[in-house]
Amino acid sequence: MKSIEVILTPALFEFRITNGEYIVVVIDVLRATTAFCAAFESGIEIVIPVSGLNELLQYKNKGYLTAAEREGNKVDFADFGNSPTVFLQSTLKGKNLAYSTTNGTQAVEMAKNSGNIAVAAFANLRSITGWLNEQQKNVVILCSGWKNTFSLEDTLCAGALVETLEQTGQFSHICDASETALTLWKSSKNELQEAAKKASHYQRLVKLGQHDDLRHCFLINTSKAVPVWDGVAFRNLSGK
Amino acid sequence: MKSIEVILTPALFEFRITNGEYIVVVIDVLRATTAFCAAFESGIEIVIPVSGLNELLQYKNKGYLTAAEREGNKVDFADFGNSPTVFLQSTLKGKNLAYSTTNGTQAVEMAKNSGNIAVAAFANLRSITGWLNEQQKNVVILCSGWKNTFSLEDTLCAGALVETLEQTGQFSHICDASETALTLWKSSKNELQEAAKKASHYQRLVKLGQHDDLRHCFLINTSKAVPVWDGVAFRNLSGK
Repeated sequence: MKSIEVILTPALFEFRITNGEYIVVVIDVLRATTAFCAAFESGIEIVIPVSGLNELLQYKNKGYLTAAEREGNKVDFADFGNSPTVFLQSTLKGKNLAYSTTNGTQAVEMAKNSGNIAVAAFANLRSITGWLNEQQKNVVILCSGWKNTFSLEDTLCAGALVETLEQTGQFSHICDASETALTLWKSSKNELQEAAKKASHYQRLVKLGQHDDLRHCFLINTSKAVPVWDGVAFRNLSGK
Repeated sequence: MKSIEVILTPALFEFRITNGEYIVVVIDVLRATTAFCAAFESGIEIVIPVSGLNELLQYKNKGYLTAAEREGNKVDFADFGNSPTVFLQSTLKGKNLAYSTTNGTQAVEMAKNSGNIAVAAFANLRSITGWLNEQQKNVVILCSGWKNTFSLEDTLCAGALVETLEQTGQFSHICDASETALTLWKSSKNELQEAAKKASHYQRLVKLGQHDDLRHCFLINTSKAVPVWDGVAFRNLSGK
């Protein structure tokens, strides 16, 4: 039996109780990890999360596609905003993508020293849990949150992961945070779009007019992506 | 309308969003803040939380009653263990108490710079929310957690505080953590003793044989205490 621990924000990653070898599963439902799943679904080869626009511009100069928004508007030099739904409208087979995300990048930076990192969202719930089940390793779910604080939508998704992993009979959760994520998910899953509206970051994106994205980010299994960190970038291991 | 923010562990206190003047309400259901309520209910005059046994011994030498446990056993020189139920069996009118608590002391230390600190548990839910309602200040609920990680029982109690404060019509919660605490509480309150058993610290205390305490800590309104920090110690403002 493998263990599942949930870390509610990157600031709490250092206090994790899981030892030995484990896979960190980073969640940033609104919107980075949902967008990664969409990008891979559209054929993107690799995704690199970056925090600042200067770094993003360097990737553009190397020939990467770039994705960045500020205040809800696509950054001028970028090819895309941060919207997952825009990726789904394109065919991007074999392209490389650098994606600007503050909270998501912070989470990945923290997880890098652990070696194994995968990415999850509601979008790839089935495919990522299927892959995790094959790995036979302990799992640490790391919610990206918002500026180090707790976020409802990532915790809901963590709860969905806990439930789905435990249904395989191969995993068991070990901490109060995973217990709470599971309770939250079970009490919300039948009206997920409604529950999501209570999240402060959801309301932030409503004000920026991101209605299509908001609906999309709470749809389950829209992507078969299995984004896994290879030491430099995320690659899609789906079907590999 | 005053705001309510919930901080899930002391490690996240620095990321709070509440500005200006506010009251920090420290929760450590198992067992420090429940014990404070019991001690005041039995007539204790002041309570000082201390972290180490050396410091506790200094208070003993000053004439304080002292409370400390290690591994479930009362520390030899202490007058009491950390059990709230033992305080309720005594009459301690006018005495001073120093109480050893690692997680509770950490939370109080962090909150001290904010000026206003009160203490809550299920034990004093009605009395503390009544007092908070009279203060007409924003409220930051600080869960003590366990070694900086998230704890289920403190979050449940935070949810009970959010619900009770909002029922006055004078308060509104402002963050995803308070939303989650409220959801957790609502889904658990009709079977609180059962829900509490899922907490890892509950199971830790079961192994130490603290069954009476565990039952007591999830009883609501067993104390009328309103423990408020006066700059040096907690005093009971109930009826004052």
